[in-house]
Amino acid sequence: MYLAKIYVTYKPSILDPQGEVIKSALKRMDYSGIEKVSQGKYFEVKFNARDVDAAAQIVESFTDALLINQNTETYRYDLTLVTDEVKAQ
Amino acid sequence: MYLAKIYVTYKPSILDPQGEVIKSALKRMDYSGIEKVSQGKYFEVKFNARDVDAAAQIVESFTDALLINQNTETYRYDLTLVTDEVKAQ
Repeated sequence: MYLAKIYVTYKPSILDPQGEVIKSALKRMDYSGIEKVSQGKYFEVKFNARDVDAAAQIVESFTDALLINQNTETYRYDLTLVTDEVKAQ
Repeated sequence: MYLAKIYVTYKPSILDPQGEVIKSALKRMDYSGIEKVSQGKYFEVKFNARDVDAAAQIVESFTDALLINQNTETYRYDLTLVTDEVKAQ
């Protein structure tokens, strides 16, 4: 079983209105020194795959197909092998 | 300058309808072996702070105050010291 953690952000050229709103709000709340805020999406997906190469291929395939808008968003991901709980004897 | 990467997820006891919808969609798209999907939010915040302890305190303070709903959500974060570009002579 693999756990993929997928971080989706806007491409650098794309305006991030939510990030700008949060930045303004922080300023109003007297947090000074805030330089930049960006908001993205975060997914955790647990799934079965034959090996780590197959797992990477599956993640890239379904992220491109379903999780991101390829025109405006980009992503990176971590992949962790999750073992079932080992029971003490 | 510090860069905080903040990962917001639902608390384990809270239903994650978006995650469930994505899981069903993946099943319909013939991805088999998907065990669990959860969707959260991801923030990147660049800001100035005196030192790493001050930076951690600032992140926790504004995340609690603005970025999460403390009733339903929880979060973790990474903190990176970002240096200005070093110019070649």
